[in-house]
Amino acid sequence: MSEKSVDSEGTGIYEELRPLFFPRSVAVVGVSQDLWKPGSSMLRALQRFGFPGALYPVGGRGGELLGLQVRRSVGEIDDEIELAFLFVPATVLPAVVRECKQKGVRGIIAFTSGFSETGTEEGRALEAELVKEFDGSFRMIGPNCLGVYSPAGGVTQHPGEGYPRKSGEVAFIAQSGGLSEDFARSSPNFGFYASKVISYGNACDLNEADLLEYMEADPDTGLIGMYIEGPRDGRKLARILRRTAAKKPVVVWKGGLTPQGASAASSHTGSLAGSIEVWEAVLRQAGVVQVGGLEELLDTLAAFHFLPRHTDLRVGYVCAGGGTSVAASDASYRAGLTLPHMTAPVHDTIASLLPPVGASASNPVDVLAPFPSPTVLKGILEAMAGSGEVGAIVIDRIVMSTELRRLMKYADQTATEDEEWLSEVPITIQKDFGIPVVVVLREHLDPDGDVAVEGERIRLRRYYQEHDIAVYPTADRAFRALGHVVGYYRQVERRAGETA
Amino acid sequence: MSEKSVDSEGTGIYEELRPLFFPRSVAVVGVSQDLWKPGSSMLRALQRFGFPGALYPVGGRGGELLGLQVRRSVGEIDDEIELAFLFVPATVLPAVVRECKQKGVRGIIAFTSGFSETGTEEGRALEAELVKEFDGSFRMIGPNCLGVYSPAGGVTQHPGEGYPRKSGEVAFIAQSGGLSEDFARSSPNFGFYASKVISYGNACDLNEADLLEYMEADPDTGLIGMYIEGPRDGRKLARILRRTAAKKPVVVWKGGLTPQGASAASSHTGSLAGSIEVWEAVLRQAGVVQVGGLEELLDTLAAFHFLPRHTDLRVGYVCAGGGTSVAASDASYRAGLTLPHMTAPVHDTIASLLPPVGASASNPVDVLAPFPSPTVLKGILEAMAGSGEVGAIVIDRIVMSTELRRLMKYADQTATEDEEWLSEVPITIQKDFGIPVVVVLREHLDPDGDVAVEGERIRLRRYYQEHDIAVYPTADRAFRALGHVVGYYRQVERRAGETA
Repeated sequence: MSEKSVDSEGTGIYEELRPLFFPRSVAVVGVSQDLWKPGSSMLRALQRFGFPGALYPVGGRGGELLGLQVRRSVGEIDDEIELAFLFVPATVLPAVVRECKQKGVRGIIAFTSGFSETGTEEGRALEAELVKEFDGSFRMIGPNCLGVYSPAGGVTQHPGEGYPRKSGEVAFIAQSGGLSEDFARSSPNFGFYASKVISYGNACDLNEADLLEYMEADPDTGLIGMYIEGPRDGRKLARILRRTAAKKPVVVWKGGLTPQGASAASSHTGSLAGSIEVWEAVLRQAGVVQVGGLEELLDTLAAFHFLPRHTDLRVGYVCAGGGTSVAASDASYRAGLTLPHMTAPVHDTIASLLPPVGASASNPVDVLAPFPSPTVLKGILEAMAGSGEVGAIVIDRIVMSTELRRLMKYADQTATEDEEWLSEVPITIQKDFGIPVVVVLREHLDPDGDVAVEGERIRLRRYYQEHDIAVYPTADRAFRALGHVVGYYRQVERRAGETA
Repeated sequence: MSEKSVDSEGTGIYEELRPLFFPRSVAVVGVSQDLWKPGSSMLRALQRFGFPGALYPVGGRGGELLGLQVRRSVGEIDDEIELAFLFVPATVLPAVVRECKQKGVRGIIAFTSGFSETGTEEGRALEAELVKEFDGSFRMIGPNCLGVYSPAGGVTQHPGEGYPRKSGEVAFIAQSGGLSEDFARSSPNFGFYASKVISYGNACDLNEADLLEYMEADPDTGLIGMYIEGPRDGRKLARILRRTAAKKPVVVWKGGLTPQGASAASSHTGSLAGSIEVWEAVLRQAGVVQVGGLEELLDTLAAFHFLPRHTDLRVGYVCAGGGTSVAASDASYRAGLTLPHMTAPVHDTIASLLPPVGASASNPVDVLAPFPSPTVLKGILEAMAGSGEVGAIVIDRIVMSTELRRLMKYADQTATEDEEWLSEVPITIQKDFGIPVVVVLREHLDPDGDVAVEGERIRLRRYYQEHDIAVYPTADRAFRALGHVVGYYRQVERRAGETA
């Protein structure tokens, strides 16, 4: 709605939306004694999530709920309300919004479905009635959404009780509720935490461009992911994407680019998805990173989170197995990266550490079997990292802990002397040489599906992530993410060069 | 070597290679008292894996090892030897092969590296010397390989102690040792077991075409996967691929199709990888399924394993969330599949089971939240399965067990009445309607990386697989695999039609 914030570089909207992410007081409107119903379960989720401000349930029957007095209307609350969560039926939503305005509420999240997305005359009429209430005195997210998750503000989506409490640097803006939930729940397993996650649904007031503008200005947000179906204001979105992507990496997954997907998008939010050619041109010109699904989105944001401002196409790859080396050479090439041959001195140093036959001291370095001694692995990585011939190192198909080796029944395959510090090697190399190291921990390698094996893998993944090392389950995914990071920063540098 | 088997439709080679997969007696040549060394650890792996025949260790120093008398040479063994595992240095390998011939050994697996793959004059000379020994009296796998895994024969690769004991219907033929190991270890997690896995290395005698011919004739093998770098005999391979793919699904991953991958392949096995255009034409004409990596290979073989001979492009998709629906519509379109709209009667039946707003009764069916009641889910699936309007059903983003719901902290979001049988619903539908049902169980959805959540997911995945239901971690992967199955059988039908 408000375009003034564009000129003030987003600081206007940043102040204006504060009550949505850091409300001092919240009214949950539409509760009943039935805790399975959305309003009441939202109230409980906010309590359990630890919302630090004042909470006011509102429901027609009054009484008490979860230790709080239920007001019969928003007007009855004898406190200032910054944010209202609306779970009332679509037919009464416009009236409740009017009431919130009269109360001086500054932010509204309208969860209710049943508006233009239904494609019915009635739904469109209700949405038109709702929009009439917009006068600039408040800002609204929704309707037909799951709302806002802002861990630093103690706010969560519906149902968001199980979301992480920890706040991070990654924002995610999505039309869809389900995808925003999957994002919030899984991001810690990819090694990062969210600053804010928003499911904005029908975008009657705040749309993807407004929310992006907020994230552009948000000092807590260093990286931005988006899932877009059909934007409300394509031109404004393109402009703000371009401006934001010059400052912070923006990773965009555009849904509905196939005819079948576009048809589904139209029945989901009533939006027009647009053609693949137009979208690819718009996103490329805006300088954002384009991805094709949730997994690639999460992988890519993880790479941006862990890697420095990185423009080097050259990667060193250390693994066990010739086929693995060939597959990685294909995958890195497809990701726009190179695995350069090492020069003779580096090659010879590495060769001196490897068995005389069966291994390979070139790049890819093949250590022959997935359980090298820590001394050998460290020596190889030091030679590579110190060579200046690669800008990052990927380690794959090496069993990275003594415990994992034991659980995978590899323990008898190699001597156990001085193995304990094997898992430290990547951390030491990254620290000592200032070179990004990426670890691939392959999944599903225990034939019995032993939970202990997966548990040790999960522990090791967390351990590396806590020591600032990105972890992927396959080399293909590691290279794809790394390629996006290098591509983005090279493009930023190129544009900066053109401007200078 | 032997081309006669082509005319006899592979039965010649099937008899000829029996000692490699079902040997009555095995000599492990090149053992020492050091159990970390490959020969000795192979002996132990065969013992622990449960090789049922006679085992004879051979090593220059004699003595005893793991309860067995060590012979100083193959000639010293006073028993017939069907298969010899050779772990001797490359320089003496030709001489040991000669000794095996004199002993009347019928099969040899040569693990040793140091031949043509090194790219050295010495390596090439040694390989030429080795090849001179081939006179048709024995068949050999290798050198420079990890050998054979044949669970029904009690034979395993090096190091193969942890491989599954159970035998299945899927064969995997790979130049690479590491990839064959990953395949054997992970296949049970994809829901199937291997009949035979072979890493054939330099293919001095038996190459990919010979081994494929064996699998063509093998009654225990119903499905075949291959990883190929550079074949020894491309014309023969193309011919046997075409002949085999007309009888059994063959899924091929060709490594080294990018310039960088081809360069790595050349240093791995000294083979020429060939151009992408030529390969794609050859594989397409042969009627095999082409995949781009290990994950896609395993996913696709799992789909062939679980799904019947299936040529229906139409899929029903049931999930929770509009964005999820759009994403699946894109993914299924890209996989060559359609998600047709249901006709009015089916749509209305489904709609009557769903909440009046927020859900979607079209296809994709969106049940709104990931925890529908079993009654609702069953009703929807019955309507779809009984409609004749789809040929398979994919269920995604539905929390499929009470325990998983509890662990994911969803338990408070919905009533718990009659939930226990929720996880039974897909099994019942597949059985009652004879329609393939695929379940997507998403990973990494617990923010705390709780091993209990992953454990319950793994248990549930096994449970479905044991009840003949394919399980994937993402809808994208489910559709990609399903698309390969439909594409393969349509092509088989089309060719049968052309011939008729």
